[in-house]
Amino acid sequence: MATMNQLILGGARSGKSRHAEQIAAASGQRVVYVATAESRDGEMARRIAHHRERRPADWGCVEEPLHLAARLRELAAPDTCILVDCLTLWLSNLLFAGRAAAQADAGEAVDCPLFAGQTAALIDTLPQLPGQIILVSNEVGWGIVPMHPVSRLFADEQGRLNQHVAAVCDQVTLVAAGLPLTLKAAPARA
Amino acid sequence: MATMNQLILGGARSGKSRHAEQIAAASGQRVVYVATAESRDGEMARRIAHHRERRPADWGCVEEPLHLAARLRELAAPDTCILVDCLTLWLSNLLFAGRAAAQADAGEAVDCPLFAGQTAALIDTLPQLPGQIILVSNEVGWGIVPMHPVSRLFADEQGRLNQHVAAVCDQVTLVAAGLPLTLKAAPARA
Amino acid sequence: MATMNQLILGGARSGKSRHAEQIAAASGQRVVYVATAESRDGEMARRIAHHRERRPADWGCVEEPLHLAARLRELAAPDTCILVDCLTLWLSNLLFAGRAAAQADAGEAVDCPLFAGQTAALIDTLPQLPGQIILVSNEVGWGIVPMHPVSRLFADEQGRLNQHVAAVCDQVTLVAAGLPLTLKAAPARA
Repeated sequence: MATMNQLILGGARSGKSRHAEQIAAASGQRVVYVATAESRDGEMARRIAHHRERRPADWGCVEEPLHLAARLRELAAPDTCILVDCLTLWLSNLLFAGRAAAQADAGEAVDCPLFAGQTAALIDTLPQLPGQIILVSNEVGWGIVPMHPVSRLFADEQGRLNQHVAAVCDQVTLVAAGLPLTLKAAPARA
Repeated sequence: MATMNQLILGGARSGKSRHAEQIAAASGQRVVYVATAESRDGEMARRIAHHRERRPADWGCVEEPLHLAARLRELAAPDTCILVDCLTLWLSNLLFAGRAAAQADAGEAVDCPLFAGQTAALIDTLPQLPGQIILVSNEVGWGIVPMHPVSRLFADEQGRLNQHVAAVCDQVTLVAAGLPLTLKAAPARA
Repeated sequence: MATMNQLILGGARSGKSRHAEQIAAASGQRVVYVATAESRDGEMARRIAHHRERRPADWGCVEEPLHLAARLRELAAPDTCILVDCLTLWLSNLLFAGRAAAQADAGEAVDCPLFAGQTAALIDTLPQLPGQIILVSNEVGWGIVPMHPVSRLFADEQGRLNQHVAAVCDQVTLVAAGLPLTLKAAPARA
């Protein structure tokens, strides 16, 4: 069965998560929400609660901070729509769980097998999954180049990840002020 | 009389103010410019002077740093085009005049009646006004998540405000390098 | 001979350089790559090497950190496509080679003849050149206003430069996640 994968991009508080949720709700499929966030402080806990209130009660919810490709292979099924929110927190989890952030801080070239392996696995896996996958990700590279090496590493890797995921998605949408702008349109399906 | 409200979004020095001024000038209506800036230092004074030089001499000009909805109710009239530049400085004024910035700095949940009341009043008021309102606002959430809590608060609230204002405007335009990109198009008017 | 000049805009790691390279490669013209980067540290050296690996071996390559307009007048020719990557590093070189950055740091109004002269020369020169010029530049003003005066100066001047260059280009494209969005379309050519 043909996959119909979508990437929803946007800045902070752009309405990208809400837009993705509306697409999932309108899919008519069983929805499984994959949260990549880990709740470690008060500010993040408030953000997670804010998102949770908005979601329909009958959606499945799974937390997966690191091994996203493996988790998607487990969960993907025909007539299932998986909503991954978001790739940005996943990327952050990978960079800090592995040694990438520390290497960047020390001014070294980054060589982080956890990060490289997991992101490559996602790109390889996405086109092979049944059902529909909707991935939410942040645009983070449109400001002044950050002064901290870890922030520059993050902006670079987020940008590259968005490019690679966009290349294997059927549809890519940029959201600003809650309004979608099509970057890549899925061809009409027979 | 039907309002035709527009939101003009863009990054810093994107040409969004100039684009808004061109729309106002082309409206054929009496134009009132509502400046939300307060001139407190040399850099801001230079920015304000730079904007002022560009505006036609016959435009009315009103300064309103805080109570925007009330001011718009006073000024709005049929055959009048009000240009509000900009919502970003207004938001900043509200957050610092109230206790929101201090709460964010202390790591507390933000509970700021001034900010919450004024932004809700703007959203409620906009669809009820006669004439035309053009609002200019910044996109500020497309960079790396800022390290300072006040900056994160600001990015979050600016993003939410832009979403809410966009929802009650007839037309929304994103400006980059002086060039407009339509995010929401007003339906043709009879 | 009519010039066909293009500006390719995007955030960090947006795929804008790759997009510009694909346009140059598809032009069927002799391609000259003008690098504005100066390799001064390990991180920048890695970025430059990463870009160089991707380019066809038969492209000419010229380094020009400062005097871009004069260099373009030398190099431009019918049936030649010049790819300038990028205006952002050029701007940075100008601001730090002249006295602009130091003036901004001291809270003074910026008065930098090197920067003002070179950017004015580029805007004047671009419409007069034979052949095709493709210019790559960053969007840097879509984040929170930076705290450092030099960063604010940079965001302001980059935004203004992008507006001015866009105004004298035939086509302007915004790239996000490797996908192009047309901001200004060249009219069909006879």
